[in-house]
Amino acid sequence: MPGHVVKSLEGLLGSDRLSFGAAIREQHGRDESYHADADGIFPPQVVILPRSTAEVSEIVKICSHARIPIIPSGACTSLEGHIAALRGGVALNMREMNKILEVNQEDMDVRVQAGVTRIHLNEYLRDTGLFFPIDPGADASIGGMLSTRASGTNAVRYGTMRDNALSLEAVMADGSIISTGSRARKSSTGYDLTRLLIGSEGTLGIITEATIKLHGQPEAISAAHLQSEFLTDSVNATICIIQSGIPVARIELLDEKTCAAVKAQSKLELEAKPTLFFEFHGESWNFLQASPHQLAGEICKDFGGSRFKWAGSAEERTTLWKARHQAYYSIIAQRPGCKGMPTDACVPISRLAECIEETEGDMVACGLAGSILGHVGDGNFHCILVLDPNNQDEIHAAHQFAERLARRAIRMGGTCRNVAALFDGEHGVGYGKLKFMEEEYGPAAIEVMRSIKKALDPLGILNPGKMGS
Amino acid sequence: MPGHVVKSLEGLLGSDRLSFGAAIREQHGRDESYHADADGIFPPQVVILPRSTAEVSEIVKICSHARIPIIPSGACTSLEGHIAALRGGVALNMREMNKILEVNQEDMDVRVQAGVTRIHLNEYLRDTGLFFPIDPGADASIGGMLSTRASGTNAVRYGTMRDNALSLEAVMADGSIISTGSRARKSSTGYDLTRLLIGSEGTLGIITEATIKLHGQPEAISAAHLQSEFLTDSVNATICIIQSGIPVARIELLDEKTCAAVKAQSKLELEAKPTLFFEFHGESWNFLQASPHQLAGEICKDFGGSRFKWAGSAEERTTLWKARHQAYYSIIAQRPGCKGMPTDACVPISRLAECIEETEGDMVACGLAGSILGHVGDGNFHCILVLDPNNQDEIHAAHQFAERLARRAIRMGGTCRNVAALFDGEHGVGYGKLKFMEEEYGPAAIEVMRSIKKALDPLGILNPGKMGS
Repeated sequence: MPGHVVKSLEGLLGSDRLSFGAAIREQHGRDESYHADADGIFPPQVVILPRSTAEVSEIVKICSHARIPIIPSGACTSLEGHIAALRGGVALNMREMNKILEVNQEDMDVRVQAGVTRIHLNEYLRDTGLFFPIDPGADASIGGMLSTRASGTNAVRYGTMRDNALSLEAVMADGSIISTGSRARKSSTGYDLTRLLIGSEGTLGIITEATIKLHGQPEAISAAHLQSEFLTDSVNATICIIQSGIPVARIELLDEKTCAAVKAQSKLELEAKPTLFFEFHGESWNFLQASPHQLAGEICKDFGGSRFKWAGSAEERTTLWKARHQAYYSIIAQRPGCKGMPTDACVPISRLAECIEETEGDMVACGLAGSILGHVGDGNFHCILVLDPNNQDEIHAAHQFAERLARRAIRMGGTCRNVAALFDGEHGVGYGKLKFMEEEYGPAAIEVMRSIKKALDPLGILNPGKMGS
Repeated sequence: MPGHVVKSLEGLLGSDRLSFGAAIREQHGRDESYHADADGIFPPQVVILPRSTAEVSEIVKICSHARIPIIPSGACTSLEGHIAALRGGVALNMREMNKILEVNQEDMDVRVQAGVTRIHLNEYLRDTGLFFPIDPGADASIGGMLSTRASGTNAVRYGTMRDNALSLEAVMADGSIISTGSRARKSSTGYDLTRLLIGSEGTLGIITEATIKLHGQPEAISAAHLQSEFLTDSVNATICIIQSGIPVARIELLDEKTCAAVKAQSKLELEAKPTLFFEFHGESWNFLQASPHQLAGEICKDFGGSRFKWAGSAEERTTLWKARHQAYYSIIAQRPGCKGMPTDACVPISRLAECIEETEGDMVACGLAGSILGHVGDGNFHCILVLDPNNQDEIHAAHQFAERLARRAIRMGGTCRNVAALFDGEHGVGYGKLKFMEEEYGPAAIEVMRSIKKALDPLGILNPGKMGS
């Protein structure tokens, strides 16, 4: 990084706020998944923790002038290489922008800085009767969840980040600060810049503040799990439960192997069988005669589910969901010394059982270790491969497998974020991901995305090398 | 329009498919509101009804080459001048692209051509147990509803068009055909082109097909209306009902004058008082002991609502909602020979009562005739002025009033689509709207919108003069 850029940044922030240490830089070049070891890490040249939108704006202006890349990050809990500094530059870690600015109880919304984490927010909200439901497992930051269009276990009831943002404040590539809307629940004027920034992984602008929807804390929660002989039965029971309108907040599917891994790491009494974890949220008046878990249990019986077990107490519920949230680590723990390579596929729910079964068959056929788990209510599943980072044959086979999974999801009318392809060793970083985005969207839509990127970030300084850019 | 363009279009479609008649052209230059007479109509030079996406693409290529504007339209039920051909050109009416292409019952989605209307779609779906809930009143086309980000009476339960689209097919300004996504319920790859096109009023691309979410037909529906002495009480009762989680599908607020107008045109037994219309959708198991309308009724009593009347039969419900859907025309009928000028404001619900009361006071103070009604669950309301199109003083006062309303909504953290300003007689078409978009979003966000428009439609041929362009 040129000396005059460092000087300008030091002039703005003071020299003690620029971190050049190897440890902090490496921490911002890797994430929790296998990439770091398998494909090398991509550290930024400097890490900065801005404290205000105005600071972010000034930093971007300095970097823009010198054409230095900027890689925004939040809690750094991504599993998918989002924050790797592929072309060096400045890592902008938002964790010090962690103020909760304004809670509007009557309007059920809150304005926060981008670095606020979801657990911090919910602790803050505890006494208001409101909560922020989106739950991707990790204690991610709101800005990071927006940038990656996060969803998680209870999207089937509360939607994803896309559905829960009212407006954003963001710093654009030229340092200008924009507001994308008002606190109104609906707007019919202007282009939807809110949704354009959500999921853009920091490639179009840096989200600095967000006004997001809150929901009433459910008056009643119940949970259950169901074990079946066949995965297809679990999926069909899910379809039926959703269509019946039972207020499911989460339905998570664990395949046989995930179930075995979770059993090994938790106190849950499970057999190694396809398993559904349920959580139902409702108001107390929903529970007057027939409770949602009873109704769901009856539907499950129709689909051959024999072991529908209700988690009656809050403690049992916590054990169940803690086990689910730890599943990624439980799966990896099955093969010591190895690293996880996650994928993120989503297909229409009618094709879900078929897609998972083909994927399991493929995994067995090519001798790879891994398990499948998913947010089955949305047709969304993760296949987590567990790889020996020193075994190049295995890494190669995993890349081939992940390519087939992406094609399978697209062929079934779905989508796949294919992390192996993102770091495709053969073709270079970025190439593989672009290939699948083209297969999913077609070249004309990719061209439209490129035009937008070029219009909003003509110098290509915002998180370069991501989103196929 | 240059002769060679007409020749090219005739070569593509056959000469009988280009309509040059004054009547059909004028029909495509006006809409159902007051603009036509107050500010002149803006007819296109030719009207074409394409039959396929391929035809739309070829037409756009011809027009792009010759830099001829293209104004897409659907059922032409807009009240807000969306389809006026401000700079002449080709009106592309999508009503012949009315095929329902694919119903996926298990996945609860449907793929349709843009010209399919919502009533046609719901008649087609009747036996499937599914329905498409978005209901803006008129029998609008799906493409038109997407382009204007329509919402309507039951958005409080089912969301707006933004929330109910899975993917779009669109023809871009260069004639290229894009698909914005898959049928997957969630996607975490790529920019959200679906949401960018929704609400863009045909200025970024022409929507030709859409895959949209369906919902289960509610097993049980109940309706009610409540009359109060004070509008504030109605709004506060609404806030409380929503926070309590009662499954409200619609809550519509009618002010005193709207109520009087509706009473005059329907068989409803109403007094001229602030009134709420309710509809509750639920599964039968919700209705086992305490029904939603009973619970809502009790809440209303706490807020001084004395006349909570339940519409028990399907017939009573129909009368109630028909009256609401006709309210716009009932209001205009109060002043024969006059035209309606609607506005569309949305504020945080905590500011709704205040905003409506200030607006009513303003209307009285400046001697304008009009009424207010709204989708109160979302903080969204319409103030419908009823104007004598030949009285220039009145038109002028209405413009001033509408400007104050827009500023009031923005000041209260909301948004206002201000139709008077869109056709601002003093400053020219488009100017006024841009002014308010700048006040709402700020100049930096408007600049981002302009960059996107310029990147995707560099020649400015798609519905020019709208969206502040």
